[in-house]
Amino acid sequence: MNVSDKSRRRFLSGLGTAGVLAAAAGCDPRAPAARREVRQWDYTADVVVAGSGAAGTSAAIEARAAGAEVLMLERLPKTGGSSAMSGGVCYLGGGTPLQKALGFEDSIEAMRDFMLAAGGLHPAKEKIELYCERSLEHFDWLVAHGVKYVQKFSESKELPFDGSSPYFSGCELAAPWRDIARPAPRGHVPTTAGHTGGRTLMEALLPAAESAGVKTLRGVSAERLVREDDGRIVGLLAQEGERTIAVRARRGVVLACGGFIQNREMLKRYAPELYDCSVPWANAGDMGIGIRMGMGVGAAAIRMHQGFAILPLYPPERTIHGIVVNRAAQRFLPEDSYYAYAGHETAYNQHGVAYLVTDADSSYDDGDFRMPLLAEAASIAALEQAGGFAEGALQQSVAFYNQHAERSVDPLWHKHPKWVTPLAKPPFRLYDLSVRSAFCPAHTFGGLETTVRAEVLDAGGERIPGLYAAGRTSAGMPSAPYIASGVSIGDCSFFGRQAGIHAAKEEVAV
Amino acid sequence: MNVSDKSRRRFLSGLGTAGVLAAAAGCDPRAPAARREVRQWDYTADVVVAGSGAAGTSAAIEARAAGAEVLMLERLPKTGGSSAMSGGVCYLGGGTPLQKALGFEDSIEAMRDFMLAAGGLHPAKEKIELYCERSLEHFDWLVAHGVKYVQKFSESKELPFDGSSPYFSGCELAAPWRDIARPAPRGHVPTTAGHTGGRTLMEALLPAAESAGVKTLRGVSAERLVREDDGRIVGLLAQEGERTIAVRARRGVVLACGGFIQNREMLKRYAPELYDCSVPWANAGDMGIGIRMGMGVGAAAIRMHQGFAILPLYPPERTIHGIVVNRAAQRFLPEDSYYAYAGHETAYNQHGVAYLVTDADSSYDDGDFRMPLLAEAASIAALEQAGGFAEGALQQSVAFYNQHAERSVDPLWHKHPKWVTPLAKPPFRLYDLSVRSAFCPAHTFGGLETTVRAEVLDAGGERIPGLYAAGRTSAGMPSAPYIASGVSIGDCSFFGRQAGIHAAKEEVAV
Repeated sequence: MNVSDKSRRRFLSGLGTAGVLAAAAGCDPRAPAARREVRQWDYTADVVVAGSGAAGTSAAIEARAAGAEVLMLERLPKTGGSSAMSGGVCYLGGGTPLQKALGFEDSIEAMRDFMLAAGGLHPAKEKIELYCERSLEHFDWLVAHGVKYVQKFSESKELPFDGSSPYFSGCELAAPWRDIARPAPRGHVPTTAGHTGGRTLMEALLPAAESAGVKTLRGVSAERLVREDDGRIVGLLAQEGERTIAVRARRGVVLACGGFIQNREMLKRYAPELYDCSVPWANAGDMGIGIRMGMGVGAAAIRMHQGFAILPLYPPERTIHGIVVNRAAQRFLPEDSYYAYAGHETAYNQHGVAYLVTDADSSYDDGDFRMPLLAEAASIAALEQAGGFAEGALQQSVAFYNQHAERSVDPLWHKHPKWVTPLAKPPFRLYDLSVRSAFCPAHTFGGLETTVRAEVLDAGGERIPGLYAAGRTSAGMPSAPYIASGVSIGDCSFFGRQAGIHAAKEEVAV
Repeated sequence: MNVSDKSRRRFLSGLGTAGVLAAAAGCDPRAPAARREVRQWDYTADVVVAGSGAAGTSAAIEARAAGAEVLMLERLPKTGGSSAMSGGVCYLGGGTPLQKALGFEDSIEAMRDFMLAAGGLHPAKEKIELYCERSLEHFDWLVAHGVKYVQKFSESKELPFDGSSPYFSGCELAAPWRDIARPAPRGHVPTTAGHTGGRTLMEALLPAAESAGVKTLRGVSAERLVREDDGRIVGLLAQEGERTIAVRARRGVVLACGGFIQNREMLKRYAPELYDCSVPWANAGDMGIGIRMGMGVGAAAIRMHQGFAILPLYPPERTIHGIVVNRAAQRFLPEDSYYAYAGHETAYNQHGVAYLVTDADSSYDDGDFRMPLLAEAASIAALEQAGGFAEGALQQSVAFYNQHAERSVDPLWHKHPKWVTPLAKPPFRLYDLSVRSAFCPAHTFGGLETTVRAEVLDAGGERIPGLYAAGRTSAGMPSAPYIASGVSIGDCSFFGRQAGIHAAKEEVAV
């Protein structure tokens, strides 16, 4: 068996006999079907949306608002996508009503500067700029569609358990970003108890879509695009149990069916750094089907290696007084960075291996959700030996850190003074932050290249007529490192809306 | 102007009016043309090869040897591709005649174990295994086609100036690989003076192709594939000055037209870590055209973020006695690693920033090709200040290193004892190894997914009939980090051969 054979079997996702198709030789599950192969359409709508998360549902609502007949397909029995599993945070700023009421100054420029500076190498500049400019309008749109917020600032670095908004959801207060752009709390969490903001968000948007007249089919998996000879996308084939159905899209197809963190073979090929992360953080639908459907018609899939890898060393925030080191016992970041930044640096830049070193005042308590404990010792020297570090290496790192921590200074990585205290009080503990063994949720960011109107582009930079993508099926605002909770859901909902708006305007395919 | 418009203009590469085409609306330069749009063929061959580097030329030779009529197109006026600019090293082992004659033991297993262990996350296992198994046969093939080797071991870590073979061309002797697989010198350099082994290699293969009857067109750029309605690739459109020509491939098209290091827009989207590297190390043709032509017909392009970034801190080898540190003054690798490993760690894992610290015995001499000198000082403390490191950080790193170096030990990164000596003798110097300012040649490794037969696969893992790819247009054996000189040319020539062999066997398209 060769690569091709093995790949094929793993990639296959159970597409049954294509009864609606004329005999078509050599077609694989992701290659498009030709329009002339489709003998009959089972459903017809102006805009067909694959996926019912924040991106798909926002697309559906906007397309419907523009007068289009909209059909939304969800592969799983339950709608809401991975968005419903998320914290539901939306990154919004520039002076939202909540920011203003609570006395936080923010500006479109500060928000944009932060997102561009912290978003890694060559982030999606045009999208970030448009998103920041429209942030207030997007907030209003979410509220108008039933998303409620509790106007109460949360000082927690972690997603507030009481659904307070806004909070500092990312790296805004950490070095070096706090000096690059004026920080403001921009994490807006739907009113909720616990960490179920994503469910709350979708419990607003899904009924809004339904009452607007969006039709939804559950348990129907979009599998292949249908293409006219002139290259225009005019529908898709979907699987409904054993039955293949053909769905016509008069104006446009919106692919909003998530990323590919659940597809191990795709991770190996495209995002090997995320393969070892312990927890694929998405629902079962995130198999990269939408991305591969797009690739099948020549779409460019970009930044496919990027994603988030989260190492939630806090809460509790007491652990931020500890230090994070690599296998050479060297600190490599300010520990008060957003936990997705810590995860990024570990997964991508430290070969997946990192440790948290604490003393009695900074270790996890018994009741805490915690990272795996590797060793406990009465001295740093003993901890160093127990952890298998090179002799003297951890002692040296701690001594250097402690020496400056006496004055609340971190000359190496500039952790905020409020968390800089000497590691002095035994017992000392060593926790495992390695992406394989720690709790390390991961998700993909790479996807189809789209314009700010969510139009899908091919490898020549030209649009593929009739095809749109949003959310994690597209390469959007989130890039590596991931800088703040809410950028992904913000991207899904905002550019999902653009997909719906523009797909509804597309001329009817003949 | 939006993303789409901007992208399009940058991507356009001057394709003129497609005179051979029937009117085709909406086609971009990389999207395929439909067979029925082609009114006439200007050329016909069994196998059409795009690109004349080691991959394309090897494909052409083998296809011709199998009895196929072969037409090879080269975009530039001169054949040889980026291979002709390279050192021409081919990574060969398992007991080549040179290894045996010089008394080096090697085995297929040791070679394979090294390549799999050092090749990063999820390297191309099936390809590496096949390549190692066939390494001796491939050596014989190269020799049979005119490539000559001087049987003389070179102890140099750098490409030998006198064309001696073999030499240790990679990380074989560095930690941790020297303990994972029995090291053997596997870098085979064509007989040459200076570093022009690539030219020597191509001066053997190109005449071999010509005398075998391969026809070559220079200054003809493959631009778009031609596809039958059933999905089979049956030719390509190429640009010859102002004129678009249609070239029919009865059996198969081989895309072997390099990577995309010369395409700045593609680097931003696909390999942002390579964007800042100071020297795009390839000839002008490496614009990603072949990769995008493949993507246009639905091929999967994988591992697109990977590539090599070389930081040649040696020669001279005296500098290996120095230490390499990051912006926090921490050592992050054994300095005797292959220089592409140092480049990889810097470009990908250290945010592009690194420094070399030397003393009087380890600094560059006046006549050496050298990295940019940032500072010189009589003490490490003064050098630390001049370099803008956090106070005490560099002093601490050097003190720790020196303390163990007294006993020729490097407990942190296990540099080989022969290079571990204290940095003790002023003046001390700080050189810039940052990828933007140092001499840092870079090249891309990502490309079309292919089988071990060089067949191109789509995003569903199915082959695209009639389409083959090899060399840096494909995702082959070289992955990140790059582990040894000669793996890329080895991949180009060996899998180029597979492309030719299998394309020649394909059934004639009707």
